This record gives sequence, structure tokens and C-alpha cells, in this order.
Amino acid sequence: MHRNFNTIGLVVRNDVFSHLETIRQVTSILEDQARILIHCLDFDTPIDGFPNVDMDLLVGESDLVISLGGDGTLLSAARSLVNSSIPLLGINMGRLGFLADVSIKDFEWHLGEVLLGNFTIEQRFFIEGAFYEGDERISSNIALNDIIVHSHKSLSMIEYEVYSNGALIHKQRADGVIVTTPTGSTAYAMSGGGPIMHPSLETLAIVPICPHTLSNRPIVLPADQEIEICLSQSQILAKVNYDGQSTETMGDRSRIKIARYPKPLTLLHPQNYDYFEILREKLYWSSHY
Amino acid sequence: MHRNFNTIGLVVRNDVFSHLETIRQVTSILEDQARILIHCLDFDTPIDGFPNVDMDLLVGESDLVISLGGDGTLLSAARSLVNSSIPLLGINMGRLGFLADVSIKDFEWHLGEVLLGNFTIEQRFFIEGAFYEGDERISSNIALNDIIVHSHKSLSMIEYEVYSNGALIHKQRADGVIVTTPTGSTAYAMSGGGPIMHPSLETLAIVPICPHTLSNRPIVLPADQEIEICLSQSQILAKVNYDGQSTETMGDRSRIKIARYPKPLTLLHPQNYDYFEILREKLYWSSHY
Amino acid sequence: MHRNFNTIGLVVRNDVFSHLETIRQVTSILEDQARILIHCLDFDTPIDGFPNVDMDLLVGESDLVISLGGDGTLLSAARSLVNSSIPLLGINMGRLGFLADVSIKDFEWHLGEVLLGNFTIEQRFFIEGAFYEGDERISSNIALNDIIVHSHKSLSMIEYEVYSNGALIHKQRADGVIVTTPTGSTAYAMSGGGPIMHPSLETLAIVPICPHTLSNRPIVLPADQEIEICLSQSQILAKVNYDGQSTETMGDRSRIKIARYPKPLTLLHPQNYDYFEILREKLYWSSHY
Amino acid sequence: MHRNFNTIGLVVRNDVFSHLETIRQVTSILEDQARILIHCLDFDTPIDGFPNVDMDLLVGESDLVISLGGDGTLLSAARSLVNSSIPLLGINMGRLGFLADVSIKDFEWHLGEVLLGNFTIEQRFFIEGAFYEGDERISSNIALNDIIVHSHKSLSMIEYEVYSNGALIHKQRADGVIVTTPTGSTAYAMSGGGPIMHPSLETLAIVPICPHTLSNRPIVLPADQEIEICLSQSQILAKVNYDGQSTETMGDRSRIKIARYPKPLTLLHPQNYDYFEILREKLYWSSHY
Repeated sequence: MHRNFNTIGLVVRNDVFSHLETIRQVTSILEDQARILIHCLDFDTPIDGFPNVDMDLLVGESDLVISLGGDGTLLSAARSLVNSSIPLLGINMGRLGFLADVSIKDFEWHLGEVLLGNFTIEQRFFIEGAFYEGDERISSNIALNDIIVHSHKSLSMIEYEVYSNGALIHKQRADGVIVTTPTGSTAYAMSGGGPIMHPSLETLAIVPICPHTLSNRPIVLPADQEIEICLSQSQILAKVNYDGQSTETMGDRSRIKIARYPKPLTLLHPQNYDYFEILREKLYWSSHY
Repeated sequence: MHRNFNTIGLVVRNDVFSHLETIRQVTSILEDQARILIHCLDFDTPIDGFPNVDMDLLVGESDLVISLGGDGTLLSAARSLVNSSIPLLGINMGRLGFLADVSIKDFEWHLGEVLLGNFTIEQRFFIEGAFYEGDERISSNIALNDIIVHSHKSLSMIEYEVYSNGALIHKQRADGVIVTTPTGSTAYAMSGGGPIMHPSLETLAIVPICPHTLSNRPIVLPADQEIEICLSQSQILAKVNYDGQSTETMGDRSRIKIARYPKPLTLLHPQNYDYFEILREKLYWSSHY
Repeated sequence: MHRNFNTIGLVVRNDVFSHLETIRQVTSILEDQARILIHCLDFDTPIDGFPNVDMDLLVGESDLVISLGGDGTLLSAARSLVNSSIPLLGINMGRLGFLADVSIKDFEWHLGEVLLGNFTIEQRFFIEGAFYEGDERISSNIALNDIIVHSHKSLSMIEYEVYSNGALIHKQRADGVIVTTPTGSTAYAMSGGGPIMHPSLETLAIVPICPHTLSNRPIVLPADQEIEICLSQSQILAKVNYDGQSTETMGDRSRIKIARYPKPLTLLHPQNYDYFEILREKLYWSSHY
Repeated sequence: MHRNFNTIGLVVRNDVFSHLETIRQVTSILEDQARILIHCLDFDTPIDGFPNVDMDLLVGESDLVISLGGDGTLLSAARSLVNSSIPLLGINMGRLGFLADVSIKDFEWHLGEVLLGNFTIEQRFFIEGAFYEGDERISSNIALNDIIVHSHKSLSMIEYEVYSNGALIHKQRADGVIVTTPTGSTAYAMSGGGPIMHPSLETLAIVPICPHTLSNRPIVLPADQEIEICLSQSQILAKVNYDGQSTETMGDRSRIKIARYPKPLTLLHPQNYDYFEILREKLYWSSHY
């Protein structure tokens, strides 16, 4: 499948200057074929002659966005693309990522292939968390990996209730609770003991963090069920965390409703992309003791 | 929704004589409204005046099948209904089951409601395991809960490879590996550490039993992917177990391919059926330490 | 074994006024036989006619200390008793505790028995965490349950190394790492997936919190080995938490050395004390699904 | 520490002929300094000119026993040495073992060092399982790693009670229950989810296999407590397995009492032996995802 990528937006990390050489290589490959826009996360000096444009501008004008960094950089870029349908490709500066899966070792070849239209397209869904005070919707935020409700202090417990389409799932005490997409199932939820969910699934998993009961177990639900979380004890404040990147405070009367967001992310992969191979490599699945 | 249940098949356990009183109550409720057929699992004497009919005959003539026993009895009945579309209702003789969810305490009222058409219908999918020697399909078998490949000796390891649509997922050493449906996720797979999967999901989970590596984790896959399992070491025999009820031997050249079966099971529930409530009650989810 | 408890110190929680009735009952049982001192945690008004004395004074003059509250209240009292050999008894205001094991329901009878000398004595060891900057010992602190090194931000990772008597155990990335005594093994470490350790053991367990690798597993070590933890990455700050009650900040050059404290805590139990029964009751070990 | 090893017993595996070359190298190193006896497990032809002597004879006459194989071969040799005080050294033919820790790559140098007296001595304790029918002791057996009570059929459950010094710990349903020493904690018990216990500890852990409840957790006990296991349901047969190497049948009236055996095993290690390094290497503890 061929696409015209007339303008390509590069999203780079704030430690950009340690990767200037790579950025130069990427821009030299791209600049014959496309106009290049660069946005540096948390930083605003020009990079290597290219103006450091605003993220909104980059999203508004690009036909393809490439993130240079790790999964965190790709996650930032993805969250900015939430209402566009611009495809996203991740070049990994370090060790192979789950999301940023073009290796720095052979990115030149892969980038050439992508420009020729030789790539795999995959759609990943976002989830949206909407805050309610009583019946009033106060705010909302988007996540590709996970939305986590947790105590505002570390090592402290919250007591919460989780509902699915209005039906109580459980009431638990834990340091927090993770609502993860399949994309997030290999991120923080994995540390909490959650299952791996294949990225093609339309599912969510509810994974408690350090639960104060032995009788918990992660549960996998259809992504078209609306998950609602509220605090059981009025005196405790909690925080809500989106993809580890933005945070809101949750009080005694607030509830958060989590649902699949209607517009998906379009992710590009190299043509030899093999999800299970990445799992095996990153999780040491080929190794035995 | 009203249905005419002109003939009702009862499936009872082989320790039927300890439950004769309940069976009499059930038949006395039903016999005014329907013809009754009884099949007793693993046993063939007449029960309380009713002839003990063959399972095939019962399936061929019933408009509704009721299992009296626990989840195991319902599982047996369900496997016999695999190619019919006859609905199945489970009356639980003991503690509330995940599948047989009409409690013995109030079955009279619930049974009356069901005969009036007041029930909830749910479809659960079966999986089929097909045995191959080389490219030849040798045999096949059906499961509602799970298909388990395990060592023919207890406490022994097998080494196996799991594929999804032909792509290698992993190669592991473990006492065995469970392929579970959402229905089976609260059965044996839960003991093996698998996640709970909501029964409306079209998913399978791969759960190792006592894996010989620390770096394993259950994985949830779309049920429309074909799972293939084969043994890595030619000298070891394994067994394949279907719902804990039937067994086949797996040798060095054999592979098993597991796929969703096209025809689902139709399960009836009382109208107040609440899946999460059963989870909470059976898993002590409302309890804290 | 009989002891003269001439002065008895009561340690009560800061929500003392909701428990005034119980405190009155306790003091009315004790006041015929002993002088009573009361210390209220985090609060300094007189309680029911008794002056609210300083904790140091209470420890200096008491022959027996009784905590009224839960395990947290007992933990506070225990930490103040660290260099004394005064025995400690816990009356539980709410649900049975692991440490405060005299139930509110029958405390009158149990208290009478204790005053008659009818009790069981058990020793529990403390651990001490000593802070080093380079080779200089900066400060130290005591814990009965656990010492936890964790990120100063919640949901953030630290990278750390753990040593035992100078030998590297492992280098890991996790939200934190718990060093727990047997006493603490049924507290926070249990939420982190740690094993239960019988209170008579002289062991420590190292339990990671949300580890960023699948290949971790809690490890149990002799309590006479010195555990040392340091951060691997200089740019990250961490916190050290003692029994969930006091906190220190850990920087790039600091290390914490954890060792068994020479003087133990003397804990009194009712004569029918049964550790395993408390486990079964609190962990629902008699329950099956 | 120097010892005179005048007679050295070699214990080799039954697939000895694939390792003849190594055996020749070992015997050629040893035969100038000591008389050599060889015992081949499950096999009785002469090996490379040496008579294949009976294990009893080998134990009766050796000053040092060397196992050539993996941890399983060393385990067999260790069990035969149970009432002697002959030291045991393990040369690993394949991948580094937890017990057989002289690597095949540099065994020549290590063997020379051992003959010169340059080695580390470590004592590991055995456990003994004694069978009782009523009050009568019927038989007993020894294990270095673990004693496992499990269903006589794979994938079947047993219901059992575990006692410590006569006090009930719990009553559970599971596929089986493992009583493991620290030595066994990195063997089968690890697959069952048990903690790692440092080999210098005098502890036992109770680890259920595929427990039929969510609220279980491994428990670590002092090795001087006597563990007793009996079956709760009279109709079910179970098996008792010692180190995966010998088996007994357990019936409705039988109980098994497990206690530390008074005489320990003397294990020799190379002087650079580092327990934690073996853990890190075998469990991939230095690896992160």
C-alpha cells in the first residue's frame, strides 16, 4: 500500500542532543522526499537547523509522524495524534521497544521501505477517562496504555469500587488499580501481575497494585463495557494517572468513567513485524533455567 | 421470551441415589408441563420410575436440558449438546457453581420462572482440538472449559511449542499448558494462575502449569486465531485432556490444533443472574484482611 | 509466670474519642491493680481524667504497655519500646490483628488473665536501617515489620542493587524493594507477593514491588546477614520507609545497611494464642471456591 | 583444608556412553592420586575398563564422591550418602546446576584444586518422611530437595490438611503440596511459586501446586517443626514423591510426618562458589525488559 508522505513530523526526546547524530541521519534520508517538521518534547530550541515547531502545528501539517526515542516518546506522540488519523512510526534509540519497533541498527533500510509504502498497518485503541463530580462531567483525558487510580502518597492504600456497565465488579483495598488496554498490558500492568493481551483484542484488564487481600486476580473485560471507579472512603484523596504522563486529583465525590475512545491510533510497523518475537526477546521467553 | 419446552431432558450424576429427593421434586414440578427424559451419567438403572435413557436419545428429543449436580455435571451435558441448539440450565446440588447457577435452595421458584419463559439466554463458545499426525487429521474432540496438554506422568515436565496462526508464540518447559476459554478461566486455569476472562469475550488464554522458568506470563489471544501445540522432544509422551473428562495420547509426531467451534452452547440463567456477584461470592472478593 | 505490673502504660490512637467507652472499661479493670499512664498518638489532651503523658515518660515508668487500636497502634508502641524490655500487649479495637490479638469482644477476661500472669511470651526481632554517605554513618532507624526503599514519586521506578554480607544478590528495576521481618511478612510484603514467614524464624525476605522484569522471585535470607541497598542511577531520588511510619530521603551517594537489631520486642499473647488460626481467619484459608 | 582422598567414587548417569570422553578425562586426572570406583545409575556394564560397582560398595569405600551429570545425578548420589559423612562434588555435564556447580568447561582445573584441598565445604540438610498407618510407623524415606504429596492421577485434586508440631496450618484443595528444603527451593517448588530460601537456612516451605483457592500463599517454617500431612477425604488415593526419584502410595488412614534428618550432606564447591551468582545466571536476574 502506497501513501504520499509529503510532510513528515519528527517527535524527539528532550535529551535530543545526545542523539543528534541519529536525528541528522534520519533527516538526511527524509529530506529529499518530504518536508520535515521537528517537535522536541519539553524543550524548545531549534534542532540542527530545523525549527522546533509546536506539537499542534506538527500534527496539523504532517502526513506521517515518526518518534525517535523509546516507547515513552512514541506514547507522547500517540497521545497528540488522538483525533487525527496520521500514521505513527517509532524508531527506537535504545533497546527494542514494544511500540517503537524500528531498531536503530537498521533504521535506514526500514525507513526507505516505509517511504516506498512497504509497511504493516495496525490500529490500536485509546481509552478515555472522564471525571464526574456527581452527574457533572468535569474533564477528560486520553491514554493508549493505561489509566491508573492510586493513592496520592506512595505506599498508601486506597479503597475503591470498580463497576462494569453499572454492575459492581468488586470493592478492594490496594495501592491502586490499573485499567489497561492490550497495548498497555506489556507496560506497567505487567509489573502488577496482569496478563499479556494480544494487541488485536478489544479488551481491557483490571489489575490491582499491591492488593490487600490474597483473593484477587486480574480480570479481562470487553472494551465496549464502561468501567467506573470511585473511592469508598470519603477522607482519602487519590490520583488518576494517564499513561504515566499526566495526572489528575480524585476526591471523595468524584468518579472516573473509562471507555474505549472512538478514534484509534494508526501504527506503522516494518513489514517483518512479529509481535510474538518481540515478546520472546523482551521477556526472555526463549530462556530456561 | 417464551419457548415451548414440550420435552425436558434431565442429566443427573452417578451418585444420583443420594439426591433422589431433589430429583423427585424436580420431576414433580416438570411433569405436568412436559414429557421428562432422564439420563444418568455413568450409570444405567431406571431412576424413580423414569427409564434411564441414552444421552443421544435425550439430546435428540429434548427442547430443554437441565443438569442436576455441579459444574462438572453441566459440563458433561454441555459436551453432549455440542451440535444441537438445545438450551441448557444447571441446578446446583451443592455450593453455587459458575455454570450451574440455579441454587438448590430456591430451584422451585426459578424452575417455574424458566417454564414461564422468564430467563436470560447466554451463548458460550466451545473449542475443538484436532489431532494431526503429519498433515493427516486423525481425530478431534470438544471442550467448553479447556484443553490441556500435559505430561503422561504427574510431576513431570514436557517441552512444547505453542503457535498462533502459524507464528511461534513460545517454546517452554512446564508440567503442562492450558488453553482455556472464558468459561474455563474460572476453572482449572485459575489454579494455574490465569486471568479471569468475562464470558462474553471471544478470547483464549494460554496458561502454563508449573512452568520451569520465571519469565512466563499468561497470554490472552483472539479466539479466531488457531492455536497449535506440539512437543519439542520426540522421546516424551504427553496427554491431551478435554474439560477434565476425556483424554488422548500425544506422541512425537503429533500436533494438536485448537480452534473455536462454530456452534455455540446456549446457556439459560435465572433472570437475576449477575456474573460478577458469583465471582465475588466464590472468590471471596468482598473480603479483606 | 507471674509478673508485677505496678505501672501500666496505655497507648491509644488519635481517634481516641470514638473509643472512649472502651478506654474507660480498660482503665476501670486496671486501676485497682496498677498505676495507669496514657499516651495518645499524635494528640495531647487529657483523656478521661488521665493526663496524656509523653511517650518517653510512659516507657520510662511502665512495667507493661498495652496498645489499644489495631496493628498500626501496636507498631507505634513497639517502636518506642525498642531499647526497653517492657512487654507489650495489643487489644484490638476492630477486626482481629496479626499483632494486636486480644479481641475487643473478650478483652475483660483476657486482661484479667494477663494480670494473673496467665499469658504467652514471644520475642520478635527488630531490624535497624543505617544510612551511609560514603563510609560515614549518618543516621539510623528501627522497624518491626519492614524497611522499604521506593521511588519518591508514586508509579515511578527505581533501579537498585541489593547485597548480602557484601555479595551482590541482584540489580533490579522496580517501584521499590521491601526488606521484611517474619512479623512484617503478613503486612505490606504480602501485598507485594512475599511468602509468609513463621514469627519464630530468624529470617528476612527481599520482596520487590511491581518489578520491571518477569524473572524475579522473593528470596528468604538469614537475619544475621547484613543487607545493603544502593541506587544504581545517580539522578534518581528514593525514599526509605520504616514500618510505614517514618521516612528518610535517599540520594545518589547514600546506601542503607539493614541488620537485625540486638534487642528484641517482648510481645504478650493470650494463653490460647494460635498463630495459624489467625492466619486462617484473616487469610480465608479455610475457604474454598 | 586438606583431606586425603585415597578412594574416589564416581557416580554417572545411565546415558554414560554419550559422555565417555569426559569420564575418561576425569579418571585420567584422578587415577594417579586415588583408587577410582564407578557406579552407573540404572545400568551395570563396566565403564571404560573400570568395574561398575554397586552403590553400597562405592559409598562404603570412598573418601570423596563425585557426580558427573546434572542436579538429578547429584541428587541420586546425595541420597545414597545419607548416613555417611563422605563429601560430594558435582561436575555438571550440561548447563550450570544449582548443586552440580563445577562446570564441564573448566573441571580439570577445579578438580586439581579440590585434590589439593582448595574447596569450600557446605552442609545441606535432608528431610525424612515417615509413613504412619494409625500410630504405627510403616516406612520412611529421605529427600534433599522436597517431599510432595499429590494426586495419583495428573490434573486431579487432593484435599489435605497440613499440621506443624500438631497444630493445624490449613486444609486445602490442590493438585498437590510441596514440602521443600532451601536446597529444593530452586527446584520444583519454584515452578509452584515458592520463595527462594538461602541454603544456609534451617527452614522448610509449604507450597501448594495449583491450589483451588485464590487465598493461598507459600509459608516458611522452622525446619525443627514436624510437618504432618494427611488426606481429608478417605476415598482418594495420593502419592508421595521424594526428590522426584521415589514414590509411595498414601491411603485414607495414612499420614506422613516430615522432619529434618539428623545427619546432613557435605557438599563441596569450588573456592569461587557464589550462590547469588548462580541464581542470577540461572534465573536471568541481570536481565530487564
